[in-house]
Amino acid sequence: MKIGVLGTGDVGTNLASKFAELGHEVMLGSRSAEKAKGLVKKMGPKSSGGTFADAASFGEVVFNCTSGSGSLEALKSAGAKNLNGKVLIDVANPLSFANNQLTLTVANTDSLGEQIQRAFPAAKVVKALNTMNFRVQTDPKIVRGESDAFICGNDQGAKAKVTEILGWLGWKSVIDLGGIDRARGMEAILLIWFALSQKYNFEPLNFRIVK
Amino acid sequence: MKIGVLGTGDVGTNLASKFAELGHEVMLGSRSAEKAKGLVKKMGPKSSGGTFADAASFGEVVFNCTSGSGSLEALKSAGAKNLNGKVLIDVANPLSFANNQLTLTVANTDSLGEQIQRAFPAAKVVKALNTMNFRVQTDPKIVRGESDAFICGNDQGAKAKVTEILGWLGWKSVIDLGGIDRARGMEAILLIWFALSQKYNFEPLNFRIVK
Repeated sequence: MKIGVLGTGDVGTNLASKFAELGHEVMLGSRSAEKAKGLVKKMGPKSSGGTFADAASFGEVVFNCTSGSGSLEALKSAGAKNLNGKVLIDVANPLSFANNQLTLTVANTDSLGEQIQRAFPAAKVVKALNTMNFRVQTDPKIVRGESDAFICGNDQGAKAKVTEILGWLGWKSVIDLGGIDRARGMEAILLIWFALSQKYNFEPLNFRIVK
Repeated sequence: MKIGVLGTGDVGTNLASKFAELGHEVMLGSRSAEKAKGLVKKMGPKSSGGTFADAASFGEVVFNCTSGSGSLEALKSAGAKNLNGKVLIDVANPLSFANNQLTLTVANTDSLGEQIQRAFPAAKVVKALNTMNFRVQTDPKIVRGESDAFICGNDQGAKAKVTEILGWLGWKSVIDLGGIDRARGMEAILLIWFALSQKYNFEPLNFRIVK
């Protein structure tokens, strides 16, 4: 599958590498095409780099791995016409570390996932993979025992596609929480995730729902 | 131990019943002493009912099980002099169901736990048991497999006491997240808890941290 990955931080480069390793055609998108082209050199011949717009246009599905505070602007730069009708997987979190304290820049009565869906109404936004460290995203087995991935979004077909893609990464348990408004909960869990991660020195960890 | 339980909803009556069953002296506190006295009749001879102030005065430790939106007022009615120096276990959540949508009445940059600690600076506030259904609170084994209880608070001795009390209820894994400001994460997890509970028809469930 042709996959566009927007964002060249740990999350974006790690996901792009993993999809390339799995045999997919990946284009990594950045504000600077040169930066993206440099980063994909070690990802093999099926990967390429370009602008946000290049990567969004290239992908049959598009991952938003930009920093949450810059996601709306990055996606605007990617271009609505390059996102319309596509599955847009929002991995970003609206984090602020101002005053040495983690808060969310949007929370409780709205979420980044919803903001993106409102800004790009013809994209099929699915929130996914934002509740865990990037290393866990592409290698769920590094935490001991089964843990869960959460998804939410308004389009059932898009969520089925994302569940399939998460399966390629090794995710056996993908819990569909409902519409994109459930991104409020998926983003809010970052507050306790961060507290846990600080406590355990940022060792890989994840949530498991026990019933 | 003498335990004061403030609040006569499912959470308060269930905790009071359980502590009475375990052989502790319990006083259930309510805005209406008569209501509390009626509710404790089936809890056995070691339990009693009274006003919020009666129950707070009685308890060596005090549980806040009032509804989050009314907790500060209920605790004011309980009286700072009856809470000062005591372990005050805050089980409440600042939930609003306005417009048929769950939101928190305080979130992200503050929390109910912190508000209570600020309002009663001489009480040793420990947030605990707010991240699960009341049935799970007193019977962690009703979910299959081990799951976790979270606590936070500024006083180490108070947290050690709460960990011991949670042990009486059957909690084997109690994760100390840090200071009372961690209540932001413990309360925010309610957003995803509620989404999960709706999905699974309010079956008992809980979170497990997998590492």
